[in-house]
Amino acid sequence: MTSLPTLLSRITEYSATHPFPDSPPGLYEPCDYLLALGGKRLRPALLLMAYELFRDDVDAALPAAWAVELFHNFTLMHDDIMDAAPLRRGQPTVHTRWNPNTGILSGDVMLIYAYRHLLSVGDDAAARALVGVFNRVAIGVCEGQQMDVNFETRDDVSLPEYVRMIELKTAVLLGGALEMGALAAGASGSDAGHLYEFGRLAGISFQIQDDLLDTYGDPAKFGKQVGGDILQNKKTFLVLKTLEIAAPADQSELHRWMQTGADAPGKVDAVRAIFDRNNIPALVAAEQARFREEAFRHLDAVQTPESRKTVLREAVEELLVRQF
Amino acid sequence: MTSLPTLLSRITEYSATHPFPDSPPGLYEPCDYLLALGGKRLRPALLLMAYELFRDDVDAALPAAWAVELFHNFTLMHDDIMDAAPLRRGQPTVHTRWNPNTGILSGDVMLIYAYRHLLSVGDDAAARALVGVFNRVAIGVCEGQQMDVNFETRDDVSLPEYVRMIELKTAVLLGGALEMGALAAGASGSDAGHLYEFGRLAGISFQIQDDLLDTYGDPAKFGKQVGGDILQNKKTFLVLKTLEIAAPADQSELHRWMQTGADAPGKVDAVRAIFDRNNIPALVAAEQARFREEAFRHLDAVQTPESRKTVLREAVEELLVRQF
Repeated sequence: MTSLPTLLSRITEYSATHPFPDSPPGLYEPCDYLLALGGKRLRPALLLMAYELFRDDVDAALPAAWAVELFHNFTLMHDDIMDAAPLRRGQPTVHTRWNPNTGILSGDVMLIYAYRHLLSVGDDAAARALVGVFNRVAIGVCEGQQMDVNFETRDDVSLPEYVRMIELKTAVLLGGALEMGALAAGASGSDAGHLYEFGRLAGISFQIQDDLLDTYGDPAKFGKQVGGDILQNKKTFLVLKTLEIAAPADQSELHRWMQTGADAPGKVDAVRAIFDRNNIPALVAAEQARFREEAFRHLDAVQTPESRKTVLREAVEELLVRQF
Repeated sequence: MTSLPTLLSRITEYSATHPFPDSPPGLYEPCDYLLALGGKRLRPALLLMAYELFRDDVDAALPAAWAVELFHNFTLMHDDIMDAAPLRRGQPTVHTRWNPNTGILSGDVMLIYAYRHLLSVGDDAAARALVGVFNRVAIGVCEGQQMDVNFETRDDVSLPEYVRMIELKTAVLLGGALEMGALAAGASGSDAGHLYEFGRLAGISFQIQDDLLDTYGDPAKFGKQVGGDILQNKKTFLVLKTLEIAAPADQSELHRWMQTGADAPGKVDAVRAIFDRNNIPALVAAEQARFREEAFRHLDAVQTPESRKTVLREAVEELLVRQF
């Protein structure tokens, strides 16, 4: 099995040897710029790991891996416009450095290039199957983004709806990357299905963990400002769980805090106190663990020697078992 | 051969029986709205006509035809944002009726649905070939849109660059629609190539004609305001031809008019007089005819009985031989 660092350097090599055209620069420079901001390249690495569950010639899956990374960056470029986000990984977003129109058009062409890379993988049947999965996943991601937009102006979002939103917006792409890796390797439909479920459930677990870390993470380890979700009144898993189970007085207090701005004194501590006295951290951690355990049962069910699963298993464990 | 009206009703039937999902409505209603504004459905009809050059079961090509129409509408939705266009076919554009974020995301999902429809055509090899052509065309359209954006702020656009821009922005999709129709029908690479060239050259001819009609068309027949391009200082084929061949005094006068606003008194008549005394209408009409004639030589070269070509030939003649 190929180690994660080696897989990442194969991805870097592939991207370097398959660059965007030089012209028109106004179209392609923003694509190169966003990709150069980095990122963990988690999705393409997962795709390659899934491929290596079944086959050794991992380079054959690189175009599909890169397609998934391009798709992810396309969503970032368009989402950043929709969120009016000034920064991405500490640098100006594309629509800030150029303008929104550039972000729209360069994002569009990045999506089309994702299809172009993907189409070069495998024989005709495999290529068609891969594009089919990619379409299904891409439609899910758009639907998840729309749900996220709708939630901003709704006051009655339920926990199941929230889980469905993070599933579509984030988790189906992780599942799809694993499924595509399996299909590119000629795996059975059953194994490809288990890998999709593994990624989907792991993705939901990851997003729940992300909500937890935003409020309870170690500031030294968590990349973002701790308490940011509270300050921005985001309807996270923690908030929705509280609104589901807390006594009316705590629900009202939480509602009141969520109508204040980020400058309300004592906001983070007060909201955290509501969470604490309702046992929210433990309840949410239990939900996260439930999705994680269900995810790994699907990895267990994949019909390939356990020794081939080590790299994938450890990468996802690393992702989902963090210190708080 | 199926007549154009019958082909159009087959397209309408296909779209009615293959609707977007109902939910989330915020994502899919804008797609339905834009499609319901109408349009000539020229591109899908051309695809079906190309298919019928070789095969009789035209319904088999409907998913590819609809894919091309969805792609076209995706470009309209995003271009309207970039152009800040308030109206499309006399109705509010999607980003005006909803908001720009909606236009971005609904456009994205429309593009992905185009791929989904396309992928359902033919056997694995045909589906892969179709997606390959679609990718190439879609990338060209994005590059053409970028060139168009660049031209707005440039003063040194040459006629060959302009032709390249309209080729990419408009003509390659017409060529691609015909090529995809041929490939879906299992036509030879040579015939598919001739049909691509037919559509590409006809598309360039059409755009040159559109520039001519904007200034010299019969107001009763031309759908838009005659003289609109002059009022908006657009760098049309007429303007670029004048800047290429006119004496310095006429070039300067044209430059001066192009620095005035749409409310400058006598602007349309004055610019038209510059065109007239430089024989621009006849020169541009000759260019348009040159591309048209070259286009039809490619249709002539397609290896299928002449009787099968009638519907396609007449449809494109109708498009390219209008009364002035």
